[in-house]
Amino acid sequence: MSKVMHFSREFKPTNTIVKINNVKIGGKFFAIIAGPCVIESPEQYIETAKIVKEAGANIIRGSVFKPRTSPYSFQGLGREGLKLIKELGEDLKIATITEVMDPRDIKITANHVDIIQIGARNMQNYDLLKEASKSDVPILLKRGMSATIDEWLYSAEYLMVEGNENIILCERGIRTFSTTTRNTLDLSVIPLLKMRTHLPIIVDPSHATGNRDLIAPVSKAAIASNADGIMIEVHYNPDIAKCDGAQSLPPEMFIELIEQIKPILEIEKKVVTGTSMNLEEVRRRINYVDEDIIDLIANRLHLVPALIEFKSKNSIPVYQPEREQQLREKYEHLAKKYNISPELIQKIFNLIIAEMRSLQKQKMNSDD
Amino acid sequence: MSKVMHFSREFKPTNTIVKINNVKIGGKFFAIIAGPCVIESPEQYIETAKIVKEAGANIIRGSVFKPRTSPYSFQGLGREGLKLIKELGEDLKIATITEVMDPRDIKITANHVDIIQIGARNMQNYDLLKEASKSDVPILLKRGMSATIDEWLYSAEYLMVEGNENIILCERGIRTFSTTTRNTLDLSVIPLLKMRTHLPIIVDPSHATGNRDLIAPVSKAAIASNADGIMIEVHYNPDIAKCDGAQSLPPEMFIELIEQIKPILEIEKKVVTGTSMNLEEVRRRINYVDEDIIDLIANRLHLVPALIEFKSKNSIPVYQPEREQQLREKYEHLAKKYNISPELIQKIFNLIIAEMRSLQKQKMNSDD
Amino acid sequence: MSKVMHFSREFKPTNTIVKINNVKIGGKFFAIIAGPCVIESPEQYIETAKIVKEAGANIIRGSVFKPRTSPYSFQGLGREGLKLIKELGEDLKIATITEVMDPRDIKITANHVDIIQIGARNMQNYDLLKEASKSDVPILLKRGMSATIDEWLYSAEYLMVEGNENIILCERGIRTFSTTTRNTLDLSVIPLLKMRTHLPIIVDPSHATGNRDLIAPVSKAAIASNADGIMIEVHYNPDIAKCDGAQSLPPEMFIELIEQIKPILEIEKKVVTGTSMNLEEVRRRINYVDEDIIDLIANRLHLVPALIEFKSKNSIPVYQPEREQQLREKYEHLAKKYNISPELIQKIFNLIIAEMRSLQKQKMNSDD
Amino acid sequence: MSKVMHFSREFKPTNTIVKINNVKIGGKFFAIIAGPCVIESPEQYIETAKIVKEAGANIIRGSVFKPRTSPYSFQGLGREGLKLIKELGEDLKIATITEVMDPRDIKITANHVDIIQIGARNMQNYDLLKEASKSDVPILLKRGMSATIDEWLYSAEYLMVEGNENIILCERGIRTFSTTTRNTLDLSVIPLLKMRTHLPIIVDPSHATGNRDLIAPVSKAAIASNADGIMIEVHYNPDIAKCDGAQSLPPEMFIELIEQIKPILEIEKKVVTGTSMNLEEVRRRINYVDEDIIDLIANRLHLVPALIEFKSKNSIPVYQPEREQQLREKYEHLAKKYNISPELIQKIFNLIIAEMRSLQKQKMNSDD
Repeated sequence: MSKVMHFSREFKPTNTIVKINNVKIGGKFFAIIAGPCVIESPEQYIETAKIVKEAGANIIRGSVFKPRTSPYSFQGLGREGLKLIKELGEDLKIATITEVMDPRDIKITANHVDIIQIGARNMQNYDLLKEASKSDVPILLKRGMSATIDEWLYSAEYLMVEGNENIILCERGIRTFSTTTRNTLDLSVIPLLKMRTHLPIIVDPSHATGNRDLIAPVSKAAIASNADGIMIEVHYNPDIAKCDGAQSLPPEMFIELIEQIKPILEIEKKVVTGTSMNLEEVRRRINYVDEDIIDLIANRLHLVPALIEFKSKNSIPVYQPEREQQLREKYEHLAKKYNISPELIQKIFNLIIAEMRSLQKQKMNSDD
Repeated sequence: MSKVMHFSREFKPTNTIVKINNVKIGGKFFAIIAGPCVIESPEQYIETAKIVKEAGANIIRGSVFKPRTSPYSFQGLGREGLKLIKELGEDLKIATITEVMDPRDIKITANHVDIIQIGARNMQNYDLLKEASKSDVPILLKRGMSATIDEWLYSAEYLMVEGNENIILCERGIRTFSTTTRNTLDLSVIPLLKMRTHLPIIVDPSHATGNRDLIAPVSKAAIASNADGIMIEVHYNPDIAKCDGAQSLPPEMFIELIEQIKPILEIEKKVVTGTSMNLEEVRRRINYVDEDIIDLIANRLHLVPALIEFKSKNSIPVYQPEREQQLREKYEHLAKKYNISPELIQKIFNLIIAEMRSLQKQKMNSDD
Repeated sequence: MSKVMHFSREFKPTNTIVKINNVKIGGKFFAIIAGPCVIESPEQYIETAKIVKEAGANIIRGSVFKPRTSPYSFQGLGREGLKLIKELGEDLKIATITEVMDPRDIKITANHVDIIQIGARNMQNYDLLKEASKSDVPILLKRGMSATIDEWLYSAEYLMVEGNENIILCERGIRTFSTTTRNTLDLSVIPLLKMRTHLPIIVDPSHATGNRDLIAPVSKAAIASNADGIMIEVHYNPDIAKCDGAQSLPPEMFIELIEQIKPILEIEKKVVTGTSMNLEEVRRRINYVDEDIIDLIANRLHLVPALIEFKSKNSIPVYQPEREQQLREKYEHLAKKYNISPELIQKIFNLIIAEMRSLQKQKMNSDD
Repeated sequence: MSKVMHFSREFKPTNTIVKINNVKIGGKFFAIIAGPCVIESPEQYIETAKIVKEAGANIIRGSVFKPRTSPYSFQGLGREGLKLIKELGEDLKIATITEVMDPRDIKITANHVDIIQIGARNMQNYDLLKEASKSDVPILLKRGMSATIDEWLYSAEYLMVEGNENIILCERGIRTFSTTTRNTLDLSVIPLLKMRTHLPIIVDPSHATGNRDLIAPVSKAAIASNADGIMIEVHYNPDIAKCDGAQSLPPEMFIELIEQIKPILEIEKKVVTGTSMNLEEVRRRINYVDEDIIDLIANRLHLVPALIEFKSKNSIPVYQPEREQQLREKYEHLAKKYNISPELIQKIFNLIIAEMRSLQKQKMNSDD
């Protein structure tokens, strides 16, 4: 196939970072999505959301449209439930996600919720994908129970074809002969997808295993294999859950899970945004940012040889006043946009640009 | 589970026979559904339909809404194509079937087509099922690629929950480790489902195998395992097909297929309705009907002991004039409804009723 | 891969027919292998064997080396049991089959039993295959639970590499996500394998379904898809079976099965050798043989053009007395070997050879 | 099932630690098994072994009996190769592992190699398991391609039934519909098995993924999910490998892998024995041991209440001179066995026993 797909590294080599207010997913930003399988009542939803936010989740899950194998099982609160999600997001200042199954529900859901989830059963519900593609809300696309990697990525392409770039993939286990776990988590696809796509990929250990005792080790493994997030079912009282009780974590197990994954997140240099931090975490994050700043400055300085080559060939002088003027205007514009001091930025870039100019001169002289 | 499901033999012990004009599916009535994967043009659709009708198909397939893995593949003619299907059905006086993927397309499709197909990818698209359930058009429900029997039957239940009884199941192969065939046909489920459900079950050898050389033997096996029909992709020129060319039969292979399955249909006492018959076929069908008439008369006469037991216990005389009067009125009503001579029916039932009365008397005397 | 495999149609275009005394498997010869899963006692084995032979089976199965998931399950009678099989084969004048798992048991088993079975768990037990290959006893090779067609055929190649040509393949269901049946019967591979290999292929509906109610329809489907035999577990009293009771047929169901498959065998022109026949069956078989004789004579006569071409090019006369003398000697030898009248054979071939000579002359003259 | 299985936590609650000279596997001891798929030549084997040992592997793999799908592929050096393994083990003072497929090769292999591997294709080759069970050499049992957890554990039971306790399980991926990776690594079974069995479980990322780029992230995930080791195919020049070249790591990638897994091993408090350590690693290991010593002393002291309860009920005095005498003798015996100073051990236990006695007295007084 000659067409370059929107999901591919060929189309976009750098990692896509999906942003929802102060929450980021992708690159070094790790998402912890938690909450009940299905929203049963305001109390159950709000109480569970408070617990998981306090423990460290940065996105709250909870279904109001729920795909159930039997028509006689509880199907969710429906559109009425969307208001609950919107209120919770505003009250707790936290990002929210919910599943949509019917193309006619995409628009109204996008008005109430921060991320729309397309579930495993609907991964190839193409009219739903097309309708979601028209929206600009971030979309989490679960892998179908028996979907190949190509089928999954092509379904992501359906979502991107209208220009929506905020797509998150979610591995949730595939259906195999093995019934020891609810599904078989196909964790090797995480590093494999990282080679093929720039989109963030998260893991759902709750549906993958169906067994709450396996969620902590599987979550750790997901991070170690380079996943960009986890999605965990939590219920403030799993014994009375209307759906998936056996795989839902009670509050204390979720709190313990967060403690268990922290050291692995640290090794993998992943940060969870949108949550409150203690001093140590702030310092760690500062360190990461510093490393990145230095990395980028180095990237810039290492472009000197290419600059020289081009300028020599084309007889362009090292110093280009108009170009520098343009850059300065851009720096000022960006500084204002991000609400930081333009003077600071100018000073920093003065140093960098001077260094580059000096390097160019040194290099050109040594080439003589 | 205590609730009795609509699909179950417990709910309805006798085979459901789905009727579309003069075509019947289920029980002894076998469906041969054939036509192109996707409707590409009026010419391709009409020419292929004429060929398969002439060869012996009694229902014409052809998609206008086509689920394609890639958003850049031909997606079908859409709603415009529905008119083509309606015209073809009327012109050729033949039943038609097409797939629907979007709940918003159910109503308009039901107005143009005789049977609505829910595809494998949408077997658990519950909003589509719910919308289809509100319609009273017959629905063919394909098994999902990795659906269990229970999940499949529960999806049928979604369709039946609003009262639609005209549901046809279609096995089309499941996804397994084996890639020698496109999917793995799970033929053992045919006799298994026959034990659990009264709904007709057909087989789709085209998608199950993906290989036109396997379609004849697999179709024969389907009939031998008690399937109620087959669905075959045929293209008047497979080499230029926009979809599934490798598994589509060219006309001559479809004609040969029909010849190959005839002896097995005969052994299994299956008849294909809605097609023209030669003398031998008419005679064969008459024989089947005669056998059934005799079988039912025997059933009626064998109820004598139960009648006697009840009447003796409750001291009811053998002859019940009001009861006979009611029956006679019912016979007349039914005869008119089916447009046959009421006198004939009355004469036949006079004989049967007299025989039953005589048997009752004999039996009661011998019991003395 | 450039090497031509022994199993391939390229290596040998005509169907291999495996012969065990008066029993043939392959081509038009259909095998009905039946008997208990495991030999529990002389009584159980002999009684079951008598029942299935009487009903129409032509090969008796029964394991003495039994692969059991748990080390604490009954493992079979071991080598002691081999004597029982040998005695039974001699007493009932019937072919026998038993499974071998240990390469050290191949030789002794080959001395006691007519066919050696390599089970699904050992399909890639290459040292067992190599040891079996050294034997010249017919071998039935079951497909591994998750074996691809290529892996299966290559395991057959291991068996054939030393020259053993009497290999029978047996499809017994593969392991998939579906647990409704014990395994998933992959029936489409029968016609597929027929294209790739000349070896006979039989089906084991007992292990494929694990459910005795499915064995009759699945057996019929197997025949309709062109299988060369079925292997059925039968127990004279399944309720007390030490192994696989739920899938074993009781005697009356086996008798009924044989009745149910007869019409399909007739349509497919398959005959079961080595069993007693009624007049109608004998006449039917005579018809088949006649058809085959005529077919072969036609084959011989149709070789005339090739003969002429070769003889013309190489200036060889039509009449070759030494060649004819050699043939006549061979005919006599074969007639004696098969214990039929050499005069009859000579007369028949006189007619055929005369016809061929006459055709050659006609053809050569018309070519002038 | 009422029988308690040897593999179960019910039979033995504490983790089994398999010991091969100075290498331990299980509990906190992590195994890094590396080397070529198949031993091709002395040079290839020895050079690769030196590289992986130097990099940090503590066990060398390399097959001489190699299961190959085709009989025409290189089958390994056979028994001749066993000498090479033995020499390498002695020369490099390193543990070795090789696969056995034929029960007749168990004994001779056990005389040349430290660990015997039973491969995936032979997981249910019960005669091989039975023969291996008679040996007392440690056995690594790979999971079959489509084996359930129960089938795998029961095969381990076959190995343990004669008393061999040194069994290591190895997850190597299962066969599913997904062909993106060679097999589908079923990582969730690691924590699941830890609940059911005391046996160590390692992971084979090479066969699970078939893709050398995935081996580092998958190895990290394996450790994070609590695996007891990894088995990695390394070739000193993968481009010329006779087997599995695409999944074999070249030396530099193996060295990098070891660097990448170190931080995760540290978090999980796993140590790799039998390799040379730098000062930091020695100190870290000392810390772990100290923690364990303290943990065990605490365990001992916390038994005081149970002691008191029993002694009170049975009127036994706190001080039991004969019991202490027995213990002292045992300490001396063990000290000599481990070749450490008996005086040191006596002094330490004097302190511990005095403390326990004192605690008992305090507790008994306070209970008054």
